[in-house]
Amino acid sequence: MFDGKFMEVVSKEGVVAIVSCAENEAHVVNTWNSYLVFPDEQRILIPAWKMLETEKKITQNNNVLLTLGTKEVEGRMGPGTGYLITGTAKFLRLGPEFDMMKSKFSFMTRVLEITVSSVQQTL
Amino acid sequence: MFDGKFMEVVSKEGVVAIVSCAENEAHVVNTWNSYLVFPDEQRILIPAWKMLETEKKITQNNNVLLTLGTKEVEGRMGPGTGYLITGTAKFLRLGPEFDMMKSKFSFMTRVLEITVSSVQQTL
Repeated sequence: MFDGKFMEVVSKEGVVAIVSCAENEAHVVNTWNSYLVFPDEQRILIPAWKMLETEKKITQNNNVLLTLGTKEVEGRMGPGTGYLITGTAKFLRLGPEFDMMKSKFSFMTRVLEITVSSVQQTL
Repeated sequence: MFDGKFMEVVSKEGVVAIVSCAENEAHVVNTWNSYLVFPDEQRILIPAWKMLETEKKITQNNNVLLTLGTKEVEGRMGPGTGYLITGTAKFLRLGPEFDMMKSKFSFMTRVLEITVSSVQQTL
């Protein structure tokens, strides 16, 4: 799911947008590329501190979109590569992956777990 | 609407997410901080090349969310500042602002005009 080019983009710092949508209203929160953890080929773990509105939205519709990118990696149309990730979201409040994440990101209160359906290079 | 800190963040390169939502489904496209043009205190102009799905969504619901940020500007919680912008969107296909944008961004086919309701520092 996560190829070399994608991991190269993630390795540069930048803003990640996490988009949820319910009742015809979108919500978006941000995190940083450097906060994304890839425990396996299918999932992304993200430390969550607040993200209360995201949590509310995903109880109604757990489909989420993430975008990220960097101008520092050459894309299809010159400098700059971006990715759109689709998947489903869940918040973890305990367990070994929660503990592993808490040891890296002491500020977090939950883990946002994204089970990825697709990763698409947009730029 | 656009204070000094906001303009400092925009002056650093990074990914902007533009989020629309209709029929309980979110859509997100990206652009770059360096593509944002501020013609006055209320609006943001963005060159649009494809953005066909965004255009479709906003005919049903013209409320959009934009996020942007950079790790290079100190925020409220250490390095990194992010902003959430809410507003309404419209596509421009002609007129003096279209021509001005076309002269800067030859690739564009339309201008995405955001009329901003709020700008909120999130980080």
